[in-house]
Amino acid sequence: MEHNQRIIFTNDVSAAIDQLLAEADFNRLFVLTDTNTSYFVLPRIADNAHIADATNITIKSGDMNKTIEAAADVWRALCDNGGTRKSIMINVGGGMVTDLGGFAASTFKRGIRFINVPTTLLSAVDAAVGGKTGVNFRGLKNEIGGFNEAEAVVISTCFFSTLPLTEIKSGFAEMLKHGLLKDAATYDRLLAYDFESRDYDHLLSLLRESVEVKAEIVRCDPHERGLRRALNLGHTAGHAFESYAMSRKSPIPHGYAVAWGMVVELTLANMLCGFPSARVQEYAQFVLENYGSFHITCADYDALLTLMRHDKKSEHGEMNFTLLGDVGDVKINCSATDDDVRAALDIYRDLLHI
Amino acid sequence: MEHNQRIIFTNDVSAAIDQLLAEADFNRLFVLTDTNTSYFVLPRIADNAHIADATNITIKSGDMNKTIEAAADVWRALCDNGGTRKSIMINVGGGMVTDLGGFAASTFKRGIRFINVPTTLLSAVDAAVGGKTGVNFRGLKNEIGGFNEAEAVVISTCFFSTLPLTEIKSGFAEMLKHGLLKDAATYDRLLAYDFESRDYDHLLSLLRESVEVKAEIVRCDPHERGLRRALNLGHTAGHAFESYAMSRKSPIPHGYAVAWGMVVELTLANMLCGFPSARVQEYAQFVLENYGSFHITCADYDALLTLMRHDKKSEHGEMNFTLLGDVGDVKINCSATDDDVRAALDIYRDLLHI
Repeated sequence: MEHNQRIIFTNDVSAAIDQLLAEADFNRLFVLTDTNTSYFVLPRIADNAHIADATNITIKSGDMNKTIEAAADVWRALCDNGGTRKSIMINVGGGMVTDLGGFAASTFKRGIRFINVPTTLLSAVDAAVGGKTGVNFRGLKNEIGGFNEAEAVVISTCFFSTLPLTEIKSGFAEMLKHGLLKDAATYDRLLAYDFESRDYDHLLSLLRESVEVKAEIVRCDPHERGLRRALNLGHTAGHAFESYAMSRKSPIPHGYAVAWGMVVELTLANMLCGFPSARVQEYAQFVLENYGSFHITCADYDALLTLMRHDKKSEHGEMNFTLLGDVGDVKINCSATDDDVRAALDIYRDLLHI
Repeated sequence: MEHNQRIIFTNDVSAAIDQLLAEADFNRLFVLTDTNTSYFVLPRIADNAHIADATNITIKSGDMNKTIEAAADVWRALCDNGGTRKSIMINVGGGMVTDLGGFAASTFKRGIRFINVPTTLLSAVDAAVGGKTGVNFRGLKNEIGGFNEAEAVVISTCFFSTLPLTEIKSGFAEMLKHGLLKDAATYDRLLAYDFESRDYDHLLSLLRESVEVKAEIVRCDPHERGLRRALNLGHTAGHAFESYAMSRKSPIPHGYAVAWGMVVELTLANMLCGFPSARVQEYAQFVLENYGSFHITCADYDALLTLMRHDKKSEHGEMNFTLLGDVGDVKINCSATDDDVRAALDIYRDLLHI
């Protein structure tokens, strides 16, 4: 795995692709899309001569199609169209396409190069950088996969105008997380962002800061052995909310679950690590205004605690959290008791007026 | 990928496993075998407490079962039996088991640790070291896979008594190749080995030297970008013989094909790089005595040349060879004309009395 992955931030995606391919020694070019991005995104870059000449491979969109069978379809298309070790694949899509495409490319003939062009904010900020690739297996998310970094990632906000605001907000929650991990200045710039403005040039500059926070953490710990757990902030409680919502048959977007999970975890951080109360209040206010709240009662606590104990970052039934002493002061592998978490859930409900 | 893979040479496999596991922090242990090794080999290490407690996964033996479906069976068994990122899998078998098991392990939950216990000479000398993992796909060998080194490899000759001599000779051809790449002293020790003695302690010491030659080359070029092509010695012609025999419906063992391929390529080396004639004669004599010959006539040359041009190491229809100026003096990326290869095939037939 290469650790100096190239990340280009631009709103001229076509020029970025030209530049990357001009420097690359390759024979055939493949472009992977899903049924959404082949319709909404591919036409926007189809005037690029490389893209026009490339072999397009399209898979069905949706997380339920992120399977080993879909990866085999990609392998088959690579075989049938003369893919060799010197070929390059460009993955154009959300996290599902970049995860599955990265896995298919990095296992075809023991690995061909791939370029990610994330088309959602969530994939730009999260899935497209960091080398995690994979597919779901038997209903388990990303059960099969590897750590394989893209040759390059082209990050732009120009495709976001096709997205509903919910999608933008979902990705923005991960940016807030990166801001909290980094420092007060970065975090405060995010809190000042106005979703209604739809100012995507400004969003690109915030996104750049945010991706660099993640890239730096990944560089220090590519295989998730320690420091990378910092990125788990908000996710132990967030995943529990997400799974619980799923079990109630009313799924919530991943980023929303993280936004709400961070309310719980910043509260825990306040209780256990001295994270400032004013920061908790301020964050909860931002979440309430922009994400609303996820409704729970005391009757849900036991189920949520069980889910947190089964999080894949937890071991031996102990809940594992990434917490903060202050914005930018990260503490990984914190444990909390059941009573701590129950108290934090009480405060979560107060803060979000539930 | 870690480049300091641990290789233990021992005829006390059980003690080596105990030692490796005593130092490893793991939760569950899995042992992968195929239908051959579960019958012939597993009972020999079943008194080891770790092995006795482990979950055994058995796949069907044979290269035709080295498929993504068999890998999925392994993933399923890992899932069903509580495999986590802290689990370890021990692959006990020939190259098919270590390749497929290495692929399944290194993609399960983005990679769990695995230990290879090769049970054939060919897998000990070749497949078990170097990080190549994979499965066949649509009839193409190792089309899907990765570069993922085993946590450790336990190499012994104690299982070889279950093998036919043909298998030993097949693996020995790769050892001869390593000797030729290394130096005259190493190579001469190999030429002096007497197969009939079945002296497996002596074989273990020769094997150790041989594996270390390969490990050193792999360390310098893990992703096969240059130097690793040295390992291709004998394989351009050898693969052509192997494929041609297959097309004639009378397959030959891989190592035999390499042994014969090296007669052709050492002849080419003599013609093009000054490799000593006496060394060619001496090698051909050893091959004739121990491997016999692969019968070809002038009428087969065109087909063989076509196969050599299509070797995956060849590009733009040029034949690519690894040749030698002398024992230990390696020259990668040599090209040869059709006439050179035809002349070498003529001499091959003379040397092997065809």
